[in-house]
Amino acid sequence: MTKREFTADDARYMAEALQLASKGRWTTAPNPAVGCLLVKNGQVIGRGFHQVAGSPHAEIHALREAGEQARGATAYVTLEPCSHHGRTGPCADALIDAGIKNLVCAMSDPNPMVGGQGFAKLLAAGIDCKSGLMTVEAEQLNRGFLKRMRTGKPFVTVKLGMSVDGRIALGNGVSQWITGEAARRDVQRLRAGVQAIITGRGTLLADNPKLTVRLSEQEWPAEVRDYRKAPLRVLLDSSASMSASHHLADGLAPTLVFHCAERPDHWPAHLQNVQLDRIEPEWVLDELGRRGCNEVLVEAGPTLSGAFVAAGVVDELCLYMAPMAIGQAGKAALQLPAFTQIADCPRFTLADCRQIGEDLRLTYRPAL
Amino acid sequence: MTKREFTADDARYMAEALQLASKGRWTTAPNPAVGCLLVKNGQVIGRGFHQVAGSPHAEIHALREAGEQARGATAYVTLEPCSHHGRTGPCADALIDAGIKNLVCAMSDPNPMVGGQGFAKLLAAGIDCKSGLMTVEAEQLNRGFLKRMRTGKPFVTVKLGMSVDGRIALGNGVSQWITGEAARRDVQRLRAGVQAIITGRGTLLADNPKLTVRLSEQEWPAEVRDYRKAPLRVLLDSSASMSASHHLADGLAPTLVFHCAERPDHWPAHLQNVQLDRIEPEWVLDELGRRGCNEVLVEAGPTLSGAFVAAGVVDELCLYMAPMAIGQAGKAALQLPAFTQIADCPRFTLADCRQIGEDLRLTYRPAL
Repeated sequence: MTKREFTADDARYMAEALQLASKGRWTTAPNPAVGCLLVKNGQVIGRGFHQVAGSPHAEIHALREAGEQARGATAYVTLEPCSHHGRTGPCADALIDAGIKNLVCAMSDPNPMVGGQGFAKLLAAGIDCKSGLMTVEAEQLNRGFLKRMRTGKPFVTVKLGMSVDGRIALGNGVSQWITGEAARRDVQRLRAGVQAIITGRGTLLADNPKLTVRLSEQEWPAEVRDYRKAPLRVLLDSSASMSASHHLADGLAPTLVFHCAERPDHWPAHLQNVQLDRIEPEWVLDELGRRGCNEVLVEAGPTLSGAFVAAGVVDELCLYMAPMAIGQAGKAALQLPAFTQIADCPRFTLADCRQIGEDLRLTYRPAL
Repeated sequence: MTKREFTADDARYMAEALQLASKGRWTTAPNPAVGCLLVKNGQVIGRGFHQVAGSPHAEIHALREAGEQARGATAYVTLEPCSHHGRTGPCADALIDAGIKNLVCAMSDPNPMVGGQGFAKLLAAGIDCKSGLMTVEAEQLNRGFLKRMRTGKPFVTVKLGMSVDGRIALGNGVSQWITGEAARRDVQRLRAGVQAIITGRGTLLADNPKLTVRLSEQEWPAEVRDYRKAPLRVLLDSSASMSASHHLADGLAPTLVFHCAERPDHWPAHLQNVQLDRIEPEWVLDELGRRGCNEVLVEAGPTLSGAFVAAGVVDELCLYMAPMAIGQAGKAALQLPAFTQIADCPRFTLADCRQIGEDLRLTYRPAL
């Protein structure tokens, strides 16, 4: 597919397809979020989006709505239609069978099982295919899925709540609450968008966190409320020091512990575990990628957050900065090697900046 | 003066008077920046702004331009006209003598030598006086002068250049450069707006700073270029450890040292000094207020910056945040007492946030 000219109508329809797709962004993993719009004679005759893995793809929903009208229509799809038999039949075949005449796509699918084969099949069937409309938006929507397809690892966000002088707690460990309620609610939305939340022993012992998604039902798109699924809680606990009384051992959400010491007998049977010689961020991410996690969130103390930053595996740094100063006695946000040159420090690019309640949310991506 | 109704024309003229006033904002201290517009029959017949202490006030410039036409005109002035004989005659008298009919002011003058006397004189002469138009803007323009008139102390800005995790230097002291060139140029504009730059012994020894204003001539308003004056360089050096070879001792700009130990013989005669039992931020500010400083800038290390924040004497915190992480081994931005409760930490309100080059400039004011 080469990028070709698109019309204003094309853009309008693709924008709607992207909005549809986005309704599934919290629930489709390990699949991508995809939206589809079928248009004929300037009328939208079918709309669909993928809701949850195992259920019909976006194109199938839209074709069902359009029925016989689909013959001769143009399909707008946010991702190359699949060509393989997964848990559902190939969408490329369904589009061909329905008599679609034109296809406009946002981007091709890097999934090695698709990777251009969808387009090839459609072109071979005489369907006019164009791709490359709103690719940036489509990439952003599925940044996790795309990264996992390309690298095997999930998209990694490190979240920090800190003072303006970079402190995540007072010297005595008190951190509740540095950031305001609005910021803490925003973090719940971060959690809703990931398939795993990673924390470490320090946070376990200091905060005994639940790491569950505490959003009200109304905060989820109505169509996917039934498909809500708790993110995997991931504890990096080399000494296997978690006790059975910690919230993470409560069995209320799936939990996976990476550890080096022997698995203790007192851990409940429902706790999943991976024993390693030592715990490297890359290995953890590889394992979570294998388990189909598209996006993961690191909510941890300075040691673990710093280890992820230092390892260069962080895709996004999400800082909630409260309007207060704590001073040098407070707990530093990131434990990093003692750099001797400014050029050695990890550098970022500011991607977004907004005020949330009284706090600032700063989103940084690694500098290229 | 009670606040009364203003017209859209009033607002338009006052906005221009404020713009005029602002041309003098870097040069009028210890005086306030003031602008004046004379309007008659919908025509602007005179414009003026105060440029430098000892030169004519804004009203005088505007009256000179208007000449005989001033009779029956309306005067828009950003600050209550003065009533006292300072280095120039009272503007209130000049407005009366010129036959001004109406006066519209942004605010009254808190200067105890004016304080309503200007309005009283004008009202007694039969001039219709209104005040309270664009007061917020007028307050902001002269925040330093107004604070000094009200409290005796200058407006205090603490500037910090730091990483996203609140570090102002690497562990080995290297800090050149954490922030980018655009941010460092912006700091030059901060310096141009103050009458004193305060630093401490740590910065003296680590950076041997010049603390001069390095702006090109073109960066100054054309009308005040000849009135540029180097801010007073203020060193807090309790042990009197500055050597004659430090830039601050070079005599290229006036320098004042606060110290506790005896004044060393090797300090050049041009160095001004104040010897104290101990150095308290309040005392330093009182002294600078007495010397006519409307605004001062603290460009110092964590000890001094922290002392000013902890003392509650900071009016604005100006953070230049570079998109890099330094980690816990770096130098903390602020040395503060070891707080044991979140409620004890100094709190701020975000006043402004903008990207400067690749850095963020965050402006905080103390929370009320």
